[in-house]
Amino acid sequence: MVSKNQLKFIRSLNLKKNRIKHNMIVVEGLKTISEFIKSDFQLVKLFSTEKKKINNIKPELIMESELKSISNYKSPDGSLAIFNISERSIEDQTLYIVLDKIADPGNLGTIIRTCEWFGINQIICSESSVDCYNPKVIQSSMGSLSRVNVIYTDLIKFLKSKNLPIYLADLNGKKLKKSVINNECIWVFGSESHGISKKVKKLAHKSFTIPKYKKNIRTDSLNLSTSVAIILGLLRI
Amino acid sequence: MVSKNQLKFIRSLNLKKNRIKHNMIVVEGLKTISEFIKSDFQLVKLFSTEKKKINNIKPELIMESELKSISNYKSPDGSLAIFNISERSIEDQTLYIVLDKIADPGNLGTIIRTCEWFGINQIICSESSVDCYNPKVIQSSMGSLSRVNVIYTDLIKFLKSKNLPIYLADLNGKKLKKSVINNECIWVFGSESHGISKKVKKLAHKSFTIPKYKKNIRTDSLNLSTSVAIILGLLRI
Repeated sequence: MVSKNQLKFIRSLNLKKNRIKHNMIVVEGLKTISEFIKSDFQLVKLFSTEKKKINNIKPELIMESELKSISNYKSPDGSLAIFNISERSIEDQTLYIVLDKIADPGNLGTIIRTCEWFGINQIICSESSVDCYNPKVIQSSMGSLSRVNVIYTDLIKFLKSKNLPIYLADLNGKKLKKSVINNECIWVFGSESHGISKKVKKLAHKSFTIPKYKKNIRTDSLNLSTSVAIILGLLRI
Repeated sequence: MVSKNQLKFIRSLNLKKNRIKHNMIVVEGLKTISEFIKSDFQLVKLFSTEKKKINNIKPELIMESELKSISNYKSPDGSLAIFNISERSIEDQTLYIVLDKIADPGNLGTIIRTCEWFGINQIICSESSVDCYNPKVIQSSMGSLSRVNVIYTDLIKFLKSKNLPIYLADLNGKKLKKSVINNECIWVFGSESHGISKKVKKLAHKSFTIPKYKKNIRTDSLNLSTSVAIILGLLRI
């Protein structure tokens, strides 16, 4: 049994303002919880519908109906944990992925997962981007969020502070070719519906678009996480 | 006003068996509806909360509360249409994308969108794959489903009938390099949780994995639609 107040508190962490206030996030699913336990996030509470230890830690028991009342999953797998958020700062890199006002949590989660695969352990987001501790981001990042730092900062200041070429992924850019890009740069991707903001565009050295196979193809854009994956694939393979 | 029976009928089309029975699908959102009208799908009914014509067609008026009661969107944009499904058959191509038991509708929609961008206008799915007329597939394909043929067939028969090299995207495959692949082949991708089925594996000529940037990277897979995008990017850019 978990107290009503505790259940209410956990539910309240669905909102960003409460996550910030308490410096806590909710993580669901055995595999993801296990990866967060192994990371630098500090475990606060561990709940399970079973007595079985998770990563050698004894969970507090929770009833299935209680778990359902606080879970963001359609079919929760029996486990839920609360972690403290660990403070993160920008580390020096040669290749940066920058997201300007990304709004869709599923996209951000998928980008975090793809970045980890390709050895990029931090993502720079504009301050108005979707919160990386949104339950849908945690779910779609499949544990990668426990290892990839997502940092929210003033993009203009960040871009000016780095002595690296700035490339934009922009539908009006030049056709991208593998031969013209390299691994020492900053790649900026814009929001799903509004692209890259004007102020950021002014700082860019080059703009590239992922070329359509033929001119007459009628679809007008790619999914944002798809675009990031294609460019990282070209850079890293 | 739309009759209760009609609302009930439209809601029933959320289920695959009813879509098959009536050969009809529901399409939502002004942009997507407009693209379906321009395609070879036949319009059956067009509803809108406004009198304004859509692609020169006068819609039947629907109340916002009625639309909300049948919509699959959190915030419907005021329009909904019913189309007849057009019969599709496999066309000869040099490059095929094959999906073996894909289960996630969002992934299938994103793959359809990415395929169109890269000039692939048909996708071959195993018969047990998620239905391409699932509302979430239609939503995430962003209109591309009106132009890309998704064909459900016996993969073994299909693969045996083509005289093309069969490549698998498989976590246990050889490290993929741009130099070893070309545009005349069949690429097979497996389900999100179970990979490629044994029978299909037996027919393959080569297996490739998208290489991690470093060996010690802890994430164990990429999202399925991400993998398709990375490989198509390498093939087509």
